[in-house]
Formats: sequence, structure tokens, C-alpha cells
Amino acid sequence: MQEIGKSAKHASATLALCSTEDKNSALYGAAKAIRAASNKILEANKKDMDIAKGRGLTGAMLDRLMLDQQRVEEIAVSIENIAKLNDPIGDILETKKRPNGLNITRIRVPLGVIGVIFESRPNVTADAGVLCLKSGNASILRCGSESAHSSRSIHACLLDGLKSARLPQTAIQLIPTQDRAAVGELLKLSEYIDIIVPRGGKSLIERVQNDSRVPVMAHLDGICHVYVDADADIKKAVEITVNAKMRRTGVCGSAETLLIDKKVVKSHLPAILEALDQKGCEIRGDEQVIGFFDKAVPATEQDWHTEYLEAIISVKIVDGVKGAIDHIAKYGSHHTDSIITENASNAEQFLNQVDSAIVIHNASTQFADGGEFGMGAEIGISTGKMHARGPVGLEQLTSYKYQVRGNGQTRP
Amino acid sequence: MQEIGKSAKHASATLALCSTEDKNSALYGAAKAIRAASNKILEANKKDMDIAKGRGLTGAMLDRLMLDQQRVEEIAVSIENIAKLNDPIGDILETKKRPNGLNITRIRVPLGVIGVIFESRPNVTADAGVLCLKSGNASILRCGSESAHSSRSIHACLLDGLKSARLPQTAIQLIPTQDRAAVGELLKLSEYIDIIVPRGGKSLIERVQNDSRVPVMAHLDGICHVYVDADADIKKAVEITVNAKMRRTGVCGSAETLLIDKKVVKSHLPAILEALDQKGCEIRGDEQVIGFFDKAVPATEQDWHTEYLEAIISVKIVDGVKGAIDHIAKYGSHHTDSIITENASNAEQFLNQVDSAIVIHNASTQFADGGEFGMGAEIGISTGKMHARGPVGLEQLTSYKYQVRGNGQTRP
Repeated sequence: MQEIGKSAKHASATLALCSTEDKNSALYGAAKAIRAASNKILEANKKDMDIAKGRGLTGAMLDRLMLDQQRVEEIAVSIENIAKLNDPIGDILETKKRPNGLNITRIRVPLGVIGVIFESRPNVTADAGVLCLKSGNASILRCGSESAHSSRSIHACLLDGLKSARLPQTAIQLIPTQDRAAVGELLKLSEYIDIIVPRGGKSLIERVQNDSRVPVMAHLDGICHVYVDADADIKKAVEITVNAKMRRTGVCGSAETLLIDKKVVKSHLPAILEALDQKGCEIRGDEQVIGFFDKAVPATEQDWHTEYLEAIISVKIVDGVKGAIDHIAKYGSHHTDSIITENASNAEQFLNQVDSAIVIHNASTQFADGGEFGMGAEIGISTGKMHARGPVGLEQLTSYKYQVRGNGQTRP
Repeated sequence: MQEIGKSAKHASATLALCSTEDKNSALYGAAKAIRAASNKILEANKKDMDIAKGRGLTGAMLDRLMLDQQRVEEIAVSIENIAKLNDPIGDILETKKRPNGLNITRIRVPLGVIGVIFESRPNVTADAGVLCLKSGNASILRCGSESAHSSRSIHACLLDGLKSARLPQTAIQLIPTQDRAAVGELLKLSEYIDIIVPRGGKSLIERVQNDSRVPVMAHLDGICHVYVDADADIKKAVEITVNAKMRRTGVCGSAETLLIDKKVVKSHLPAILEALDQKGCEIRGDEQVIGFFDKAVPATEQDWHTEYLEAIISVKIVDGVKGAIDHIAKYGSHHTDSIITENASNAEQFLNQVDSAIVIHNASTQFADGGEFGMGAEIGISTGKMHARGPVGLEQLTSYKYQVRGNGQTRP
């Protein structure tokens, strides 16, 4: 692992100075290699799938792991899309001329070496390696053991791309999954790794956050709320709540809890719950909620803390926007929360006082996504406040430096 | 400590929404209280000084600890200067209108709760508490045991300021130094503390970096280099080197190592070393350096790794700008490094390839300072790449959030 870290650091110095053209050439080369190797990748994936089935993995997990021709093509297209994005490196963020004549320029530079630890989805191998490369960073990737064969075959294509652009092969390294101690060692390599990005379930992220000696950019899953205010438009309330919960239930921006002002429980709640129920969503609420909707089942304290990632929603009646803000402060995960209201003052109060990476007025929480924010691609959503908050795209994978130009100035 | 953390988190919610006027009113109130209590503060400082002398503390340490009327006045002025700075909270960093009509605004918000752990200088109590307050953050301060009485008396004035502005007393908390386990507990309070800023010697910073479960913004001391290029103007080389090393030797931006291109050793080195020697600087170099300047003493490998923070400089002859860049990559601390040259291409190579927070052409490394960068005040210099790099002022003590305004959008 020391060797892997050292060679990544070495490669990062080359990448930091490498032209956009060279980086893009490696990306287009990788996409081409993916297409050319699609049969090999599918064979490798079949091995992973067979092992997974043998281990008794469930449907959703198998689906995350599975590749077919279309998904392989999507990986190639996704690489090409990242190649088309603006290269953030070298962007001038700020310039200042000081009274003593010093010219100070703050310019964007890569972070250096990024360690990415992820689970199951084999396409993350390409996504993560390619986002790091485009942002001028070397990467050390560690996939889950269940996708070992698939990831290795995809990684080989990334190496082909690097080779075709004459960039160092150590710019994107994949750690062998056989080495079970590797994750622990990776988290201690603060000499060589600048930042660790864990992508996966809560237990992985918690382990990384607890054990890492390297700074972690955490992409925790989200307990997202939709709050239906007293002044909510009922049509918007129904449509947004259903979309926020049911568009895709397994993404981190999906809503887990519906909050509703007690003043409009009678007028608004039945229609919302009816629509959710029709989409197949289980509804958990307190006695009052069950009173309004008899298919609802009782919610426990634990429900307010739970990210279901399934077609289940917890429903709570609150006292106005203040009640909603307090509930979110207590149970939220600082990810994404939305208020539905026609009352501008309540909307602004919510947007200002809810301490989440993304706060939304009259739109679905499922917009919490780098693509939807116009970033082109994301490696995840950060719920921490250090460095990047919200969607983490190319720009969020960078740092900056100050270049100061003088003509002999000394400090008095 | 749990209680302290919890109450700080609670206070941070108030501070995040508090007006610039209220924050400034607390700051001016604190400055006024400092002036009114100057005799009390000096008495408290005398207790600390007596204990320190009894413990046999040395001159430089006693000087750092010592307060007199002028230094107390400087603390008050420094608070007033921070009150005059622009309030960064609420600044709009970016706005976007998406094709689906969503308006996305990225606005600056406070980090939340900042833990500051520092040593000896009692004025840091005021500086740190006040910078955190102005940037909308609650703070938990932990001073060194040697400045316990002085810090407590200054902290009392900050509380007066908070009281006069009707802000919560828990907005700036000082942990009793008697509680020796407190630092360890502080570093584990990730539920309540958003970021830890250690200020002090290397052993403190290393301990914090190793033990903290809370993200750390590290202000490590710096091994700063001056590189005299083959195309250096000799007058600039002499003046800048002397200033970079000798203006103040105890600051993190002072130069520790002089690198010089072998081509100009004969022409430039004697004048530079002569000037340093006249200012009382000890010179350490290899045999060749000693050959040119017989007062020089031999340097060992350890010298290139050493931040003297004293009137000592290590001198090394290198092979051109590439040699300088390689030396800095191996021994530098990513803080501040300067090239002296009239050759624009060499200058740009150095500015681009040296991986430090601050890279300088033809000016002194001692400009590495938030004030000199026009930030008004700083809590230190960050040598890490996460979050803030270089001087850490008010803006660097903030995060951001996305406010998304829609009119009923759901995600397809």
C-alpha cells in the first residue's frame, strides 16, 4: 500500500500539470477501450454475478452489480460526457493588487491523490477514476469484493486510455480486493492520500469516518423531509410529495418523512396519502394520521431517524414552519429538505433556518443531484460543511493555491 | 463537555441568523469591556507570569505570555478592526437558473461550532472568539494552562460584549484548564463541533490531527524556502532573503532554507550570506557553501527538515529551478516558497510546480499572512488542501448551502 500511495503521489504531480487535451484524450481512449472490451467486461461480470448468487445476494443487490450491453455502453457514454465538461484546473478564482504592488492570484489546483472506497456498482470504477482524472487528481480505487472481476476489467480499459494519452498508469490504481487489510491501510496513508471519498452504505461510511487519518469527504445517505405548510397549494403538495418519495426510493435525495402543518391536515393530508398509497407506498404515522388515513400503520420514535430507501414514508403533524424546522433540526441529516407553500415569508424562513446542504421551496427533494444542479457529473453528495457541501462534482474535487507576483517587495 | 458542546450548537443556530449589527455590537461591547477591565486583566496576567517564572519558562515563552497596558489596548483595537470587516454571511456565491425553471442560489453560511485549541498567547482568546463570532460561528476555546488566568479575564470581557448585544453567553465558551481530559473529549465531540482549529507548536497540532474525530483545519508551521535563480537580481536576492529570514524569525512564514542555483553561487551567494551574518543569522551549509563563506557551519540531513523559528538558515546549492522544485517537494511543508529571478519562464515554472499554499515571485515569504492578503485578520495559515488553503480569515471560517426556489417542479 505504501508503494501504491507513493506512485499515486508521483503521478499526481504529472496530472496537475497535464493539459486538458491530454486528460480528455485519456478519457476518450478509455471510452473506446470499454466499447471494444464489452464482451470481456460482461464475462467478468458474469463471474461476479455467479459468485453473488452463490452467496445468496438479494434482488436489489444483484441489480446493482449486474451489467449488460446497455449498461456497458452507458459507462462509455458517461466517460465521454465527463470529457466534454469544462476543465476546472487553472481557473482563476480571485485576483488582487495590493497597495504594495503585489499581485495575488488564487487559482484552482487539484487536490492531489483521492482514495475512493465503494461497494457493488461496477460502473463506479469508471465514474470515480474518470472524475478524479478530469479534475487533475490521481486516484486509488477500492471496489467491493462482490464486483472484483467487473471492476478489474473496467479498470483495464481506463489504463488503456491512460496509455493512449501517454499518462502514467499509476494515475488510476485499483487495489486488489484479495488484500482485506488494504482499506485499513489506505485510511492511514495521510502522507500520500489527500482525501478519502467513501461511497456506499452507512456502515462503510461510518467505518471510514471513524478510522481515517486522511480527511474524509463524506457522502452520507439522507433523511430528507417534505414539509407541507398551511399555505401549500394542494396540487403541488400532492405532486411534489409523491415525486420526492416515489420517483426512485433508493436514492439519497428521496424523501423519508412528510411533515404537515396541523392547520391543513384535514384539507391536504388525505389527498397526499391517497396518492402515495396508490403508488404503493407504506405510510407510517401517529394516531392522528391513522385517524385520517386508515391504511397507515403506527410510527415509532425510530421511524423519524430512519432512511428507508424503500417505498415507506413516515408522516408527522407539526405546528407551523417553526415546528417543521425543529423536527428537521432534531432528526434530519443535513442533506435535502423541501417546503411546499405559497407563503413567501414561510418559505424564506425555512430556506434560511433549515441547516441542510440543500433547501428547496416548491420542488422535489429528488433534484438533489449534481447533474440537476448543472455540474455535469457528481461523485456524490456531501452532508459535511468542510470543503464541499451538497453535490460533489469536478470543482469540488479541487483545491487552490495563491500565486503572488512581486518586484522585490520585502515586508516592513 | 457534552453540555458545553450541546449549548454551543444551540447558540450557533442563533448566531447563524443574527444580524451584522448585533454581532458588531457584541464586538464593540467586548472591546469596551477589555479597556475597562485592563487592570484586572493585568493582575490576572501577573498570576500567570509568576507561575510561569516559578516553572522556569524561558524568555521567548514568557514574552508570548506577557501582557502590558499596550498589549491589552492592542487586543481591544484588534477586536474593533474585526468588527469593521465585511460580514461574509449571506454573501451570494453563485446563482443559476436551470432549464426547468429552478433558481439555485449558493449562499455563504457559518460552519456552526468551531473548537479552538491554543497555547500561551492570551490574546488568542479574544482573536479566536471574535473571528468565530463575526463569521457567525459559536466557539469553544481551550487555552494553555500557562495562560489560564489571563484568558479567563479576557473571556469575561467577551461575555460582557455578548450580553450587551443580547447574544447567548454560550456563543463563546472557554473550557476550564483544570480539566485535563477536556482536550481529548473535545476532539471526540463530532456531534456538536463542526471543525477544530489547533494553534500552537507542532506537538499540539500532531496530537490534534491524530486524535480528532472532528475535521481539523491545520495550521502547521512552515518550512519556507527562498530560491535564488540563475537570473536573480542580486539586490533583490539579498534584500528578500534577509527579510524572509530575519524580519521576524518566529513566524510561520519566515524562511528556513535558502536554495541557490549553482550557476550564481560565486556571484550571488557571498553577498547574501554576508548580509544575513551581519543581521546575526547562523548559516548552515554543505562543504561548498562553507568554501564560499567560512563562518558557515556544516548542515546535516536533519537541517533540511527543520523549522528553526530562530536566526538560523540552512543553505543548499541546487541545479536550476528544477533542482529547487525537487528539493521543496522533498523537504517542504506546503506553506510558502519564493523564487527570486528576472526570468519570467523560470518564475512561472516555480509558481506552477511548487505544491504550496502560497508561491511567490520576487517578494518575501513573510508576506504569508491574512492581513497582507487583504483579509483583515486571520486565525492562521492552512497547509492542508481540504476546505481552506493559505491564510484562514473570516471567509474561510464559513461553509455554504444551496437554496433552490421552484414553482412545483418534480423530477422526471
